[in-house]
Amino acid sequence: MEIISNGVCAPKGFKASGIHIGIRKNRTKKDLCLIYSEKLCAAASVYTKNKVKGAPIYVTMNNLKNGVAQAIICNSGNANTCNEDGIYIASETCKLLANELKIKETEIIIASTGVIGERLSLEPFKNNMAKLVNNLDYNSSSAAEAIMTTDLTKKEIAVKFLLDGKEVTIGAMAKGSGMINPNMATMLCFITTDINISSEMLSTALKEDVVNSFNMISVDGDTSTNDMVSILANGLANNEKIVTKDKNYKIFKKHLNIVTDYLSKEIAKDGEGATKVIVSSVINSRSKKDARKIAKQIIYSNLLKAAMFGCDANWGRVLCAIGNAECNVDINKIDVYFESVEGKIKVCQNGQSINFNEDYAYKVLNTKEVKIITDLKSGKNKAQAYGCDLTYDYVKINGDYRS
Amino acid sequence: MEIISNGVCAPKGFKASGIHIGIRKNRTKKDLCLIYSEKLCAAASVYTKNKVKGAPIYVTMNNLKNGVAQAIICNSGNANTCNEDGIYIASETCKLLANELKIKETEIIIASTGVIGERLSLEPFKNNMAKLVNNLDYNSSSAAEAIMTTDLTKKEIAVKFLLDGKEVTIGAMAKGSGMINPNMATMLCFITTDINISSEMLSTALKEDVVNSFNMISVDGDTSTNDMVSILANGLANNEKIVTKDKNYKIFKKHLNIVTDYLSKEIAKDGEGATKVIVSSVINSRSKKDARKIAKQIIYSNLLKAAMFGCDANWGRVLCAIGNAECNVDINKIDVYFESVEGKIKVCQNGQSINFNEDYAYKVLNTKEVKIITDLKSGKNKAQAYGCDLTYDYVKINGDYRS
Repeated sequence: MEIISNGVCAPKGFKASGIHIGIRKNRTKKDLCLIYSEKLCAAASVYTKNKVKGAPIYVTMNNLKNGVAQAIICNSGNANTCNEDGIYIASETCKLLANELKIKETEIIIASTGVIGERLSLEPFKNNMAKLVNNLDYNSSSAAEAIMTTDLTKKEIAVKFLLDGKEVTIGAMAKGSGMINPNMATMLCFITTDINISSEMLSTALKEDVVNSFNMISVDGDTSTNDMVSILANGLANNEKIVTKDKNYKIFKKHLNIVTDYLSKEIAKDGEGATKVIVSSVINSRSKKDARKIAKQIIYSNLLKAAMFGCDANWGRVLCAIGNAECNVDINKIDVYFESVEGKIKVCQNGQSINFNEDYAYKVLNTKEVKIITDLKSGKNKAQAYGCDLTYDYVKINGDYRS
Repeated sequence: MEIISNGVCAPKGFKASGIHIGIRKNRTKKDLCLIYSEKLCAAASVYTKNKVKGAPIYVTMNNLKNGVAQAIICNSGNANTCNEDGIYIASETCKLLANELKIKETEIIIASTGVIGERLSLEPFKNNMAKLVNNLDYNSSSAAEAIMTTDLTKKEIAVKFLLDGKEVTIGAMAKGSGMINPNMATMLCFITTDINISSEMLSTALKEDVVNSFNMISVDGDTSTNDMVSILANGLANNEKIVTKDKNYKIFKKHLNIVTDYLSKEIAKDGEGATKVIVSSVINSRSKKDARKIAKQIIYSNLLKAAMFGCDANWGRVLCAIGNAECNVDINKIDVYFESVEGKIKVCQNGQSINFNEDYAYKVLNTKEVKIITDLKSGKNKAQAYGCDLTYDYVKINGDYRS
């Protein structure tokens, strides 16, 4: 396995482009991206479970009924959500793109991210669709830029591995910084691969994956209306087509998870206002489900997140969070450790206070990445969740997002 | 009905005291309070549903098995939670007080609030119990002060009303500022009354009440380990004893709710770092349960709370929060209004954007108390929840709470 550059354009046969069309006021910010496969792809998506869903979500759900697609289009700066004409705008955008690419409009995955409840005009799409298509090339960078909103970093990755002697590549890009608490589905992530796989197996792999990747991150506990993860597989790697949960399916899933785990952590790291990423690791749990719930409950606590910002080894807030998780857990068995590049320190044993060196704890916490290890000493399952600290800048960014 | 002063000491036969005994380092901060009834009382409590519970909670649960009590003791500065000897310390404290008051140790309600996981020494209790009892008088003020932690305001109230010609009084004090998201039970609130009522009816009234009062507030989504609401009724009002859910029970509950509703709002208003209180009012809901869930989900959203801090009429975050509530709701029927002393403005109609005056919206939001009205247009039920905005100061206060 090798980690390579060029994100969604790393797999064979994928092109991308990203341009500014005027949805965002700042002309230096790209706001429309396109990912295109030279060949029709098996395609799958998972969507937000928020009952308020963006119009593009409904259009994509409909387009993916037959499990194939050839392009992904996504704008930033406007979520096209809670708008009377939202479905119309999203459908017309697909038509404009289909016309330009000479494909069917139902072969398009469409997404939007930005402010909720502001009308999205069709004009900039009309005026710029030809340019968007003309700009397609084998460089993923501008597309990955064009889906950023409050993101500070561009998030992309690609991995390359062998499957029965054939080289297979998975590439991906993601956005996400605030309103991040994916539930069953997630924020925006577009994955491309040249693997040869059936739509059914592709969809199954994606659904199984997000439970352990994007669904295990939280920046602020708010599940967005426009979350979506989509994957396109064009088959150009020429491996024998994957149609069951065989050995090759597992190899694919393993590498898919490397990609999604990386991007999950990148999103947590780039959480609005964050100064550090928090890795919540729960070990020795009775069940995987409990481990997941507890790991997430810990990174979900505002009080703990604020303590991490202040490098305060306030482990009582870890225990308080665990106590609020909806699962059975023997509090009197729990050990808690903080760990970072500076070392590892035990701060709680059997659910109770122990003496520890506060200066050393401060040193461990005063780093860019802190791991909170919760040892339940009750079984053999584990889970990991990614979050970030709660800072002045989170409040600043969200105090006046629309202006 | 009349609102009167002197909190827990307003009802007949109740005394209180509050002193500094050295649990909190700052000598100007009182840290131990006592409420005492001249006569044995019917008593009831509701407790936190956090699976990690403070030691005093277990001791109080045990003491209240027979439904009677005569005194409430509470320290601030240390939660006596996650300590190996916590139960021992709480029990010994009850013994010391029982000895001083010449009552049974099982007739005492005990509570603690403060840092989790720091040993609580018995010494300051031993050295100061006589002083605490000697300081008892008919003034509630020092007791209400002694339970404050990060609270900026003392929270007390009393109401007086007639029941079959007899004057009945209910008094109460509360603390709460952070780690506020009561669930089934709540933060600390001690209620006294001279009404004549059975332990069973008193307990029923309290349980029914908190669902609509303390359980409808959230400052930061964290349910504390030490939440508790206790009520003592000494019968000195001499009304005919309430033993069933009759007319007088309903009159009592109505006035109890005036007290608890007032204190709930006071706690939200004094939320850590808050600059304004948010009243989330859901109307015309299919069910009361849905109305409660939606009202709470709205005040629970960090994104919305930050927007309120910035006076940003970002109603999309209200819709996003509603979509995350676990209940069935027709999004396409929802109207949203912002209301304050400056006026009322509709910002969303039938789940969609409408044109509104941004300057006027800013004016409405730039006040100390903002009401968010969510009209579901689907039934006749309503609910109200109290919260506060998310500010720089919340982060500051919680970045280094322990120092």
